[in-house]
Amino acid sequence: MSDNVENIRKEEPLLEGYPLNEFPPYLMNRIMGRYNQSLRQEMASQNLTTAKMRVLAVLSAIEDILISELAVYAVVEQSTLSRALDQLSNEGLLKRKIDSIDTRATRVSLTKDGLKAFQALWPHMLKSHNGMFLGIDTKEKKQFTITLQKILTNIRKHPF
Amino acid sequence: MSDNVENIRKEEPLLEGYPLNEFPPYLMNRIMGRYNQSLRQEMASQNLTTAKMRVLAVLSAIEDILISELAVYAVVEQSTLSRALDQLSNEGLLKRKIDSIDTRATRVSLTKDGLKAFQALWPHMLKSHNGMFLGIDTKEKKQFTITLQKILTNIRKHPF
Repeated sequence: MSDNVENIRKEEPLLEGYPLNEFPPYLMNRIMGRYNQSLRQEMASQNLTTAKMRVLAVLSAIEDILISELAVYAVVEQSTLSRALDQLSNEGLLKRKIDSIDTRATRVSLTKDGLKAFQALWPHMLKSHNGMFLGIDTKEKKQFTITLQKILTNIRKHPF
Repeated sequence: MSDNVENIRKEEPLLEGYPLNEFPPYLMNRIMGRYNQSLRQEMASQNLTTAKMRVLAVLSAIEDILISELAVYAVVEQSTLSRALDQLSNEGLLKRKIDSIDTRATRVSLTKDGLKAFQALWPHMLKSHNGMFLGIDTKEKKQFTITLQKILTNIRKHPF
């Protein structure tokens, strides 16, 4: 395989003039694939899926969020999100309440056990995150984060 | 909803001390979610899924790649990849051949029609990409790409 890898490198693969490994969406996709994979074992041991993990993480940060907003923050499609919320609710990790103003809307938040589940997962998320930034100094990481924030502001459809 | 957004902002949501919007995996996940969404309409009109789109993109850049390597580059799980390859093959967009050395291994590449399908998709990928970097100058984009490459090198499991 190493021979073949060498060949690939020599060829400098292009996407219509764009080197593949200089195309940021490709790089981000590879990185997030690896990040999710690195958490998969821990998630499985906690009976979590990627969708459930993201819901726990967002709810640990934002209490009493509308489900429509949670879908945006967690980047989970509505049907997948509904299943994840049902499961988390059945497991006693999540509670729902009707919005006080719009009675058709539901807000969700973590129960005490839900917060515990997130706290058990968080060290693994942080470890995967730290692994990303090995050898990258604080200044470079800060600039990287600023650029990510600009990109998100450029392409998001919601005001948050 | 804007009131509520204000509340969320005031609260400065935290993941165990980490502001949510300063946690790079969260930001990258939001960005890639939006990127994929922005391509969904175009993909649907071409009868493509995210997996098929990624396969076309990687195969446009790397010819005669082993399926095991394609799974890594395209960040698609083997079972999803198998289905995508079958569909692309049935649609005449992809051809397979047995590896000349390891006869158990298969290499895949685009047909002429496959390359055309990618070329029809590419302007939309480039447009979504360009939308990300509005107002971000060449120097900042270059540094951002370098940091992405470092991160991928840090966390990838394969030598490419």
